[in-house]
Amino acid sequence: MAEFELIAQHFTFGHKPESVVLDKGDDCALIKPLTSSEKLLAITTDSLVAGTHFLADIQPKALASRALNSNLSDLAAMGATPKWYSLALTLPKNIANNQVWLSEFSQQLAALNEEYGCYLIGGDTTSGPLAVTISIIGEVEHSQAMLRENAQVGDLVCVTGSLGDAVGGLQFVLNSDLTAVQPAYKQHLLTRFNHPTPRVAFGLAAKQFVRCAIDVSDGLVADLSHIVKASQVSAEIKLSQLPLSDALVGQFGQMQAIEYAATGGDDYELCFTINPAHLMDINKIAEQTGVVVTVVGEITQSEQNNHQVFTLLDGQTQQLTQLGYQHFA
Amino acid sequence: MAEFELIAQHFTFGHKPESVVLDKGDDCALIKPLTSSEKLLAITTDSLVAGTHFLADIQPKALASRALNSNLSDLAAMGATPKWYSLALTLPKNIANNQVWLSEFSQQLAALNEEYGCYLIGGDTTSGPLAVTISIIGEVEHSQAMLRENAQVGDLVCVTGSLGDAVGGLQFVLNSDLTAVQPAYKQHLLTRFNHPTPRVAFGLAAKQFVRCAIDVSDGLVADLSHIVKASQVSAEIKLSQLPLSDALVGQFGQMQAIEYAATGGDDYELCFTINPAHLMDINKIAEQTGVVVTVVGEITQSEQNNHQVFTLLDGQTQQLTQLGYQHFA
Repeated sequence: MAEFELIAQHFTFGHKPESVVLDKGDDCALIKPLTSSEKLLAITTDSLVAGTHFLADIQPKALASRALNSNLSDLAAMGATPKWYSLALTLPKNIANNQVWLSEFSQQLAALNEEYGCYLIGGDTTSGPLAVTISIIGEVEHSQAMLRENAQVGDLVCVTGSLGDAVGGLQFVLNSDLTAVQPAYKQHLLTRFNHPTPRVAFGLAAKQFVRCAIDVSDGLVADLSHIVKASQVSAEIKLSQLPLSDALVGQFGQMQAIEYAATGGDDYELCFTINPAHLMDINKIAEQTGVVVTVVGEITQSEQNNHQVFTLLDGQTQQLTQLGYQHFA
Repeated sequence: MAEFELIAQHFTFGHKPESVVLDKGDDCALIKPLTSSEKLLAITTDSLVAGTHFLADIQPKALASRALNSNLSDLAAMGATPKWYSLALTLPKNIANNQVWLSEFSQQLAALNEEYGCYLIGGDTTSGPLAVTISIIGEVEHSQAMLRENAQVGDLVCVTGSLGDAVGGLQFVLNSDLTAVQPAYKQHLLTRFNHPTPRVAFGLAAKQFVRCAIDVSDGLVADLSHIVKASQVSAEIKLSQLPLSDALVGQFGQMQAIEYAATGGDDYELCFTINPAHLMDINKIAEQTGVVVTVVGEITQSEQNNHQVFTLLDGQTQQLTQLGYQHFA
């Protein structure tokens, strides 16, 4: 299938917003951002590559969800409103000629565009090993962007949703012999892995009360480490307070679930810090946006220049096996 | 090497423009575009994948040039000023740990940023088969963007530079047994293939006189076809007028050179149409920006709804072997 037919047939969907002056099919897309002097563009890029982030036989809907939602999650962590994105799709020949695969992939993108209010403006399709790179642009008011460098000693460390489910789901992907304790556990964990939920609405509503935020893509401890380093503070996480799903605990037991929650990646929940005085406001917003928020620790003073995340269990420092992966480590 | 070190060591270069509020290292980059109501953002994305667009042993400087310059060329074809770009880099382990490779790749990017005035705002590095996806953003005045749909019957069809050199250079890449007629021919053609020259300055200066433009990435005939279809016209190309380098003709002979020039991709020259009354203006701009411009044909009326590019040699229609490749064909 030629590139132009592929775009026409599978990647032309959604209602073109007024801000899009020129769409797919010319040398560039042309967009008209809002011209308020307070508005900034927030831009982020994420690649998913077969063999590194997913297995080559991944379901097309799961690939679409993970590729777009990991980008939306970065915007959520900045408090930005999703607007436009480009899609670079590298397809092996068997998939490029598989109309069912392409339909399911693009239908899932279209559904997510509808849900999160973003629009596909262009991209590139090439032949090669399966990979998806999305670059997304959002808008955010300068004064309300949730950066990483503003955490202050005494801030509460909070997270949305439950943690560790994605790495729990990954165990079923990697190990077909793994027995589900209950079928519903497996299904829940796989859904959380394949279709993560970017916390866009919560990020937008909460940013007025949030000091800094990051999305949990590499694991809570690893991601919170970026906040403490940028803010020149430390943090204590109470492992017993980590929000765990029944499925995760039921499938893997309490201790393994805690380890997954503290160090497993791909959850795409938000980790953020707030002044304790704003906890009521945050809880209200959580309720309004249908998200559970849990306080899991606090920001502490660093000893000398050692900005670290400490994980505590029953008041004792607990060493964890690091799961949050680093590329090229 | 961890992703964060890799970014700090190799991908932190250039003078951060005032428009960049937040740089690499947070969830998103934050940029502040000009707030004139006439300004649009022009956005384009290009992927280069090992085995499809280049061989895996490509020189890192050539890969950096081809990846960034193919994107800059799309902005040139729109008449947009390059501003910010993101880089998604997928590296196999041996390259991720090869400091010399990474240095050369990033030095070449830095040099091109300096030359074309663009700035790396962020991206992603992942492990996997070598691939580069760049998404670049430029600025253009709404009324001066060079679209594809404005060609009119009687317009002259012009091209910048010389055509066919890139596919000539590719022959040396693909066939190590190919003998150079002269060493300088081989060197010229390989340089044109590995380090294409995006016509950014010419595009910016010429756009006021240009009716529509496209960059020659898939081959002149294939790319001009997009213009004639979008504009609902046809075009005649006089093959004897195609600008051919001495190296291309010297290496491959006149007829093969013409075929390469008409149908070979990756030249990243501009093909554009103008009202004949503006030829003098265009020639002046060509001289000022150090670019050769050649009139290679004209826009003609379509018979019925058959919008086509006709290639003529000595007044006769000449069939060409199609080289301009289509992915997944």
